[in-house]
Amino acid sequence: MSVVAYNKLSVAKITELYHDLHKKYDAFQKMGLRLDMSRGKPSKQQLDLSSGLLDCLSHDDYTSCTGVDCRNYGGLDGIMEMKRIFADILDIDVTEVLVGGNSSLSMMFDNIASNMTHGVRDGIPWQRQGSIRFICPVPGYDRHFAMCDYFHIEMIPIPMKADGPDMDMVETLVSGDPLIKGMFCVPIFSNPDGCVYSDATVMRIAGLQPKAFDFRLYWDNAYCVHAFNGEVPKIPNILRECEKVNNPHMPLIFTSFSKVSFSGAAVSAIASSASNCQYILKRMNIQTVGPDKLNQLRHVRFFGDVQGVRGHMRKMAENIKPKFDAVDEILTRYLQGKEIAWWSKPNGGYFISFNSLNGCAKRIVQLCKEAGVTMTPAGATFPYGRDPFDSNIRIAPTYPTLDELKLAMEIFCAAVEIASLEKLME
Amino acid sequence: MSVVAYNKLSVAKITELYHDLHKKYDAFQKMGLRLDMSRGKPSKQQLDLSSGLLDCLSHDDYTSCTGVDCRNYGGLDGIMEMKRIFADILDIDVTEVLVGGNSSLSMMFDNIASNMTHGVRDGIPWQRQGSIRFICPVPGYDRHFAMCDYFHIEMIPIPMKADGPDMDMVETLVSGDPLIKGMFCVPIFSNPDGCVYSDATVMRIAGLQPKAFDFRLYWDNAYCVHAFNGEVPKIPNILRECEKVNNPHMPLIFTSFSKVSFSGAAVSAIASSASNCQYILKRMNIQTVGPDKLNQLRHVRFFGDVQGVRGHMRKMAENIKPKFDAVDEILTRYLQGKEIAWWSKPNGGYFISFNSLNGCAKRIVQLCKEAGVTMTPAGATFPYGRDPFDSNIRIAPTYPTLDELKLAMEIFCAAVEIASLEKLME
Repeated sequence: MSVVAYNKLSVAKITELYHDLHKKYDAFQKMGLRLDMSRGKPSKQQLDLSSGLLDCLSHDDYTSCTGVDCRNYGGLDGIMEMKRIFADILDIDVTEVLVGGNSSLSMMFDNIASNMTHGVRDGIPWQRQGSIRFICPVPGYDRHFAMCDYFHIEMIPIPMKADGPDMDMVETLVSGDPLIKGMFCVPIFSNPDGCVYSDATVMRIAGLQPKAFDFRLYWDNAYCVHAFNGEVPKIPNILRECEKVNNPHMPLIFTSFSKVSFSGAAVSAIASSASNCQYILKRMNIQTVGPDKLNQLRHVRFFGDVQGVRGHMRKMAENIKPKFDAVDEILTRYLQGKEIAWWSKPNGGYFISFNSLNGCAKRIVQLCKEAGVTMTPAGATFPYGRDPFDSNIRIAPTYPTLDELKLAMEIFCAAVEIASLEKLME
Repeated sequence: MSVVAYNKLSVAKITELYHDLHKKYDAFQKMGLRLDMSRGKPSKQQLDLSSGLLDCLSHDDYTSCTGVDCRNYGGLDGIMEMKRIFADILDIDVTEVLVGGNSSLSMMFDNIASNMTHGVRDGIPWQRQGSIRFICPVPGYDRHFAMCDYFHIEMIPIPMKADGPDMDMVETLVSGDPLIKGMFCVPIFSNPDGCVYSDATVMRIAGLQPKAFDFRLYWDNAYCVHAFNGEVPKIPNILRECEKVNNPHMPLIFTSFSKVSFSGAAVSAIASSASNCQYILKRMNIQTVGPDKLNQLRHVRFFGDVQGVRGHMRKMAENIKPKFDAVDEILTRYLQGKEIAWWSKPNGGYFISFNSLNGCAKRIVQLCKEAGVTMTPAGATFPYGRDPFDSNIRIAPTYPTLDELKLAMEIFCAAVEIASLEKLME
């Protein structure tokens, strides 16, 4: 039996289908489930892959390769061997990276906070320049948007295409508006699309000629080692590309091991021109006693080097990929060909981006919730939580077990069908 | 032979003394020493007391008492058992404390940053209120002053007395000036005086009636468990005292284990009214994935409870107290009765506060440096690095070994005598 697009069905057929689906949905509801797919959280099994981190230091192992006693004060920039691992991952020099604490989000927040009150490289504080704006590719990461909102930074949504943000729009806006001060990019396995920016997109981003002298790229490379097939995508090096076009200080790269080792107890890094790093250190010198160097040493002992990280991520992929495959398989089984659903098929990262018929996403999430499945709120992938089409939903497959995930996706698909039929019956 | 005050000596005698001292000093210089007494850093021996922290978790020990997987995301406020330890130390409720990362300085910095851009409890941002000011008891902690300076907060120095800041001055200023937004206090074993605020001082601070509706106490209780004789001074509980006088949200208490366990890898806390804690969590929810809960769990496993902390600090005192005694003994031996030097004799904390004849501190520090002993820069204990009397020097005895310390103090005393004689010969 071939699948028919739902918008081609008769009213009678739609009504019949709707009642059948509701029976199925009611049965799910009676199961009293409580499944959480709202956040990109690792599962217990993923975390177990790093359990060696918990006991890899011994009571007399606290000295870095340069002789630093990691227990004591000092070393704002991180220990050399951890800087080396991040530098190797990002293909940059150790002078271009600072290793922080357990949250790259907080490094990004702090960078924005610093620019608000003190300006970029001692420039005019952003907050004194009027109502500043950031370019926000959509769908995107809700926590980027939350930071903008918190600092009253206006967000300009720019559609994501298959190869990255719509650069025609970005170029026009950034070159014309001195109040556009920043742009968020998740260049590898973007959140939520799982898109990898094409070489052409990266070059065009590097070649931006911002009207604002203090424009900054927030290059959130959170998933730069998170490939499912062992092949990390190779995109042009943003630091080197920006240097070539005389824009050396524009990019600020953020990355972390939050989804490599322990989400709550990992290490993060900011990478930028060596001179930007020095500016950041000046602030840190006032701000903090420095990052937890022992936790950096733990990561060094556990992973060894960049090859160790890559090997670890291959094991991680063995755990994650079956979950992404299951989501795709179930979405395909129930929704393919009905022209009510479209979704991404990423080769890495943490999310699948799902699009329903316009005006259905909120209803789908609500139906899921009422059947015990918590999804990321509809709209979360857009600035101010406002998806103009009410269509995008971020699916985060990692946290549940494979069995829970399959069940949750069955429910999700029923919810999608019901919401779509309701829409078609309007 | 009884000691004579140097200002009673004849010119001939001064000249003779000066030449003898210079011979001694020249001999020190020839030793080519490199001793660092510039910062309040723990020694290796102190750090070794906590080496159990390095291997106290095993690969299957990662769950908090409330069932939280400390490896994963979540738990912005810290794990319950670590909150309990801080709450017990500060004699407050667990709802009044948030456990952070490894630096209470960064929590303080962040609180000021937050108030600058977003105001106190959603009030008017400090930065929009004109040139705001903080009360800074002097001598004080240079990193407090550096933060004010960074945020362009004007510092009003207030003299420290034996029982805390001069409260007559503080009350007059704070009740009259709406631009005074904050006051730094190190109530127990103050930096550098080692002073413990009297009950009367604490009550008067709690009872302040600030003209500014958004005035905050930065109550830096960094040394609250750092007694040398096992007896932690008991001062009135600032949260409770402020509640009594209807000022419940005024105090922000900061403390940490930076000088209890590992200076670079400890845990810190902010404590305040439960409602203030909720405001802080709102910001943290945007700012970070949360603190490193595993490091909190490590501290819980190692210390157990507040009694464990107190026992540990008694062992710490056995290491530190001989150093403070040595400093006092050498200062007494060389300088007592000459009326060229006065110093504190603290019962805890990390510093000895030294005062020379007016106009001598910079010269003393310079003489020390030229003989290979790095002291905290003269003036560092005052806002903008300006000691109006050029008299105060912070002595930090912990980092060197006892032998190094004794040698450094011999040199220091020679430097004090030389600088004083130079001043008397002017």
